Amino acid sequence: MFIRFITTGGTIDKIYFDALSQFEVGESQVKHILSEGLVQFDYDVVPLLQKDSLEMTDEDRNELRDFIDKDDASPYVITHGTDTMPETAEALEGLEGKKIVLTGALSPARFRTTDAVFNVGMAVAAVQVAEPGVYIAMSGRVFPAGHVRKNRAENRFEAV
Amino acid sequence: MFIRFITTGGTIDKIYFDALSQFEVGESQVKHILSEGLVQFDYDVVPLLQKDSLEMTDEDRNELRDFIDKDDASPYVITHGTDTMPETAEALEGLEGKKIVLTGALSPARFRTTDAVFNVGMAVAAVQVAEPGVYIAMSGRVFPAGHVRKNRAENRFEAV
Amino acid sequence: MFIRFITTGGTIDKIYFDALSQFEVGESQVKHILSEGLVQFDYDVVPLLQKDSLEMTDEDRNELRDFIDKDDASPYVITHGTDTMPETAEALEGLEGKKIVLTGALSPARFRTTDAVFNVGMAVAAVQVAEPGVYIAMSGRVFPAGHVRKNRAENRFEAV
Amino acid sequence: MFIRFITTGGTIDKIYFDALSQFEVGESQVKHILSEGLVQFDYDVVPLLQKDSLEMTDEDRNELRDFIDKDDASPYVITHGTDTMPETAEALEGLEGKKIVLTGALSPARFRTTDAVFNVGMAVAAVQVAEPGVYIAMSGRVFPAGHVRKNRAENRFEAV
Repeated sequence: MFIRFITTGGTIDKIYFDALSQFEVGESQVKHILSEGLVQFDYDVVPLLQKDSLEMTDEDRNELRDFIDKDDASPYVITHGTDTMPETAEALEGLEGKKIVLTGALSPARFRTTDAVFNVGMAVAAVQVAEPGVYIAMSGRVFPAGHVRKNRAENRFEAV
Repeated sequence: MFIRFITTGGTIDKIYFDALSQFEVGESQVKHILSEGLVQFDYDVVPLLQKDSLEMTDEDRNELRDFIDKDDASPYVITHGTDTMPETAEALEGLEGKKIVLTGALSPARFRTTDAVFNVGMAVAAVQVAEPGVYIAMSGRVFPAGHVRKNRAENRFEAV
Repeated sequence: MFIRFITTGGTIDKIYFDALSQFEVGESQVKHILSEGLVQFDYDVVPLLQKDSLEMTDEDRNELRDFIDKDDASPYVITHGTDTMPETAEALEGLEGKKIVLTGALSPARFRTTDAVFNVGMAVAAVQVAEPGVYIAMSGRVFPAGHVRKNRAENRFEAV
Repeated sequence: MFIRFITTGGTIDKIYFDALSQFEVGESQVKHILSEGLVQFDYDVVPLLQKDSLEMTDEDRNELRDFIDKDDASPYVITHGTDTMPETAEALEGLEGKKIVLTGALSPARFRTTDAVFNVGMAVAAVQVAEPGVYIAMSGRVFPAGHVRKNRAENRFEAV
């Protein structure tokens, strides 16, 4: 079994710099999470973007889609900012035979309390078990692309 | 969506008592893990047993199977000790229409570094996505019952 | 034994809000840290300010000094932002008979990896053992006020 | 500033081995704790013993006392099992000019929730600030040797 992880930034990889009192996207936490999960499969991590998902452009999404379209390493787990994860999921639909699960975190992976580990665990299982297609694994749920939104007021993902 | 969690003991719930220098099965960590995972679905937790899996008997497995057979809350996630998880998975096969995923941990959930959170995340996703049947979610993999063993020397689960 | 903790904000209590991608001072983490430290003494926590220390004014420092001057609960542990902790320490010197230790964190207490717990442990010990006066407990050291600075480039406190 | 850490075993360094369902003293966690505490002083770690403190003998205590007596690196922080920490502290009294603080943990340092980090922080501060002598830093308190006991029923250290 092989999974390709693609990282694009977002809260999951946020890091805090004291001197500036800012919070920026840092090095991906995916390898750390997989190591703690004691996973026994082959994988690599492709750091494609490092952006807040609010800053993701259509061009970024086209680049991501093109990358996967030309690549032959399906399945994919993509870590992504939460605010526009549903839009990116829809932008990736229709790639013949590809299995893609997007996930991320509402609280940074570097936090003592974070949903990042649980969410990456969900994505890893979903991408093994699901039929080809595009999914989002967040809030304890596996949603098909196009049938999920982020409820920002409630800080959760929900079916639509 | 509703998931019933059944806890049976095992390393995932181990706790350490200083005075005795012993390590015993403690209160289930499942609720804590689901809370950290920010899950948005209904669930309950049924604490059926509190045993090291090496101490699990055929009678215990029959009790577990009977419980699920007579219950109507499918799907199920069962936390279980790792040493005999494959045996219990096989003992639960053949329950018409039931979806069951067993998981646990090689390192206690109370540890700073543990595979418990990742594994429960995997189980929660697998039980939503998989076809009816019995599965084990460990070592980053989702295995069908009867096709998995614990390699104790390597401290991992692998396909057979 | 009784210790009064005064919280003033700073990195130690920073919290991250996803939707805004901002990082603000949140509820104090001191009680959580003392609880994890299994402390067996009486204490209370006075939340005096919630500021980045760069925003601390002379007026804020006067308010803090007045509070301690009129209060009779010595000793004190003050949690404070790191950037101007040395200035605040100096502003508190000369209060007859008072024992005051300032501490904080270079990495937020809510992070998985943080110096906050270690630093509060240092402050609690120093305030019991030291002679009356004002001290800073950071970077593994206990410095007397007026003899310490933050080296921002190296992200550490050092003697001057 | 230089501190010599001497590790002797105890709960602070306990590790859990799944296959055996046992809990043994593992590699010292002191370096990990000091690293997380972002300490800026020179130190080394001398692993003298790896024992539950209930198994500590008079011979062990003599060995420890002799080591410190002949060594010239004062001050010392000694990590030690909690059950007989007070006895060892008394056995180290009377070493002219030496500053020694013993500490440990009621919950292993490898746990997600542990008093180990807080306690080592206390010990590091106490050993800098205190007069020469032997002390125990536990339960949020710095006790002089000979005036402290472990209350096992309440799982805490208290003055006597």
